[in-house]
Amino acid sequence: MISLADQMRRIEQGTLTPEAALAESLAAIEAHEGTIKAFVNRTKNPKAQTKGPLRGIAVGIKDIIDTADLPTEMGAAIYKGNQPRADAPVVMQLKQAGATVVGKTTTTAFAANDPTPTLNPRNLGHTPGGSSSGSAAAVAAGMIPLAVGTQTGGSVIRPASFCGVAAIKPSYRLLPPVGVKIFSWTLDTVGLFAAGVEDVAMALAAVTGRSELNAPEMKSPRIGVVTQDFAGPPETGGAEAQQHAARAAAKAGASVRELKMPVIVAEAWRIHIIVQQFEAHQAFAWEYGENYDAMPPLLRKRLDDSRHYTPADYDAARNVAVKARAALNEIFKDVDVLLALSAPGIAPKGLDSTGDARYNQLWTLMGTPCVNVPAYVADGNLPVGVQTIADYGDDAKAIAAARFMERALR
Amino acid sequence: MISLADQMRRIEQGTLTPEAALAESLAAIEAHEGTIKAFVNRTKNPKAQTKGPLRGIAVGIKDIIDTADLPTEMGAAIYKGNQPRADAPVVMQLKQAGATVVGKTTTTAFAANDPTPTLNPRNLGHTPGGSSSGSAAAVAAGMIPLAVGTQTGGSVIRPASFCGVAAIKPSYRLLPPVGVKIFSWTLDTVGLFAAGVEDVAMALAAVTGRSELNAPEMKSPRIGVVTQDFAGPPETGGAEAQQHAARAAAKAGASVRELKMPVIVAEAWRIHIIVQQFEAHQAFAWEYGENYDAMPPLLRKRLDDSRHYTPADYDAARNVAVKARAALNEIFKDVDVLLALSAPGIAPKGLDSTGDARYNQLWTLMGTPCVNVPAYVADGNLPVGVQTIADYGDDAKAIAAARFMERALR
Repeated sequence: MISLADQMRRIEQGTLTPEAALAESLAAIEAHEGTIKAFVNRTKNPKAQTKGPLRGIAVGIKDIIDTADLPTEMGAAIYKGNQPRADAPVVMQLKQAGATVVGKTTTTAFAANDPTPTLNPRNLGHTPGGSSSGSAAAVAAGMIPLAVGTQTGGSVIRPASFCGVAAIKPSYRLLPPVGVKIFSWTLDTVGLFAAGVEDVAMALAAVTGRSELNAPEMKSPRIGVVTQDFAGPPETGGAEAQQHAARAAAKAGASVRELKMPVIVAEAWRIHIIVQQFEAHQAFAWEYGENYDAMPPLLRKRLDDSRHYTPADYDAARNVAVKARAALNEIFKDVDVLLALSAPGIAPKGLDSTGDARYNQLWTLMGTPCVNVPAYVADGNLPVGVQTIADYGDDAKAIAAARFMERALR
Repeated sequence: MISLADQMRRIEQGTLTPEAALAESLAAIEAHEGTIKAFVNRTKNPKAQTKGPLRGIAVGIKDIIDTADLPTEMGAAIYKGNQPRADAPVVMQLKQAGATVVGKTTTTAFAANDPTPTLNPRNLGHTPGGSSSGSAAAVAAGMIPLAVGTQTGGSVIRPASFCGVAAIKPSYRLLPPVGVKIFSWTLDTVGLFAAGVEDVAMALAAVTGRSELNAPEMKSPRIGVVTQDFAGPPETGGAEAQQHAARAAAKAGASVRELKMPVIVAEAWRIHIIVQQFEAHQAFAWEYGENYDAMPPLLRKRLDDSRHYTPADYDAARNVAVKARAALNEIFKDVDVLLALSAPGIAPKGLDSTGDARYNQLWTLMGTPCVNVPAYVADGNLPVGVQTIADYGDDAKAIAAARFMERALR
């Protein structure tokens, strides 16, 4: 993989030019894109910038995020050729930090479940996960050092886990959720993919202008392991990854203990679907109402199956979420971070399913920062990650603990 | 003005056909639009629907809200001819409730301060206010029974006050803030204009599928009058409107007392600008960064003047807002609603300024529902409104109290 931190340091030192850094990505795209299929549209003759901390850094943008110079097609036939007038704020932040947008990455249609043709670079017989399929795969294949995705259920952390790359789903709205095709305005969260945790951290710091997000490794973190039993048992590779990560953390000097979540938090996991689908019916009202036949079939079925949620169901669900956030806030008084599986297990075989978000939904609803750290590689070269989860707004802490975990797992 | 409630009732009773109701609006537009200039684009051959509670109801949509069948030009040259692929969720909700979109209403450029050519139907020498200028004016002129606007500072309640119409700025995200050109993702709130409070209430209930929002008049409400001294003194007509409204409420049986806001709430008023402008710099990054010369001058100047806000300033401001919301929540344990001026006074003369949002900003930041009720008419036939303000999520209560105020003021 291409390390963003490494490229940034070499550019800063003058041993790598921004042009050469960008050229490295462009050559890697030429070499791997034919197999991986991570991009839908690519920038013609991308140019390196001469200024900004991310000069020379090639970035891929999930194709539900508006770009002024490339179509934004949402992975859906209904939006074929759709050309936004403006760049989304996160795209402008990247450009203003010096990065070069090299293309739009594949997304499951409307960031739901209908798969893309993208392959998992770790094992071409498996899905890269979704919905930010192309962003995870492009980084994992070593094509680009940085990519942008979004998460409503588990669409950043899960594909990062499946592809063995680092990623952050930051606190709600740390990255502006504007110029992004909305699935659920409460849940949708813009996130970043890169090779390792430091790479993610340096990118997030540069994009937001918050240097403290490039946090150094935390020493001896207090870690609460959350098994997420309320979301069902792990699958192949999952239990191993969780045990391996907890043991490695303890060995590296963390204080590690298993934490049972209060009932209200488990309840919040259960009602994520209500918040998501109630809002999705509004967010996709035009697509579903006026283009029913052209809707991607898996998303359409999910909408068909969730028509019964009432405003009262939604209000009750939001009330549970508020209470669960308060309960979680109390838990974070005793631990620095929570540690949980980023996905139930390895990436599913084939491209029919992008996998299950059941180990991600709670944290998306809580709005807490989550950082994926590759933790374990199961048979078939298939990775499973763990996520460090900090309290809302403590993104630097989630990153610092993820850096600890990354070293502990090395 | 055209009463939505009246049209709905007559249609329901069969004494008015949806076609005839719509035709009434279309004829009124033909009669007044040449003078008032409330529309930017109009639907060709609009058709009444045969189903839905709002069948026959003509609605105007502020031109920062996406429509699939009409351009969405943001009141700005940069977006000339911009044609979104989809209808915004609120537009679909209106259509699915039976309403007919008859056109896009004028908006100050990007819903900021640069005025539109729209005139105030109450007095053609004065501004209708902004940023939802056309929506307020179209209802006030009796052209349409319903219009949609948005508020980031005071862009729904203030023009409603200036034009003497009812309006609601609902609780945060009761109407989906999706498919709307974003100024500030925290603050932007979609709202409705109609002739009277019942008209607004019936529309909001129909659009959201929440019948409880069509709330009957509250009996003997407990009202806390807030003078908003922290936001400066009232202007012409303001003090009279406030006194008149408080006296009328007491006379009609309300328990009325003046309430001093805690320091943290006044502080929240002061930092509204930080939240708004910090987010605006991100939301308008493409427009401001890539189209500086074509930016509307007043908005550009506001962006020029607010470049110094740092992430730390923003975080501190959001922290104040959280605390102020908690303090306000306590206050609402003792009163049903707060009553405050909807604007400092009458609409300013001429079209150079759309007026001042200083009596609205606090409530937008608090996310609380606000309903404008015309309260007083100053010399020159220039109205001033008061707003009933309920706790977050208590939109029905804000409406019920506004109905009380409306009758008390009749």
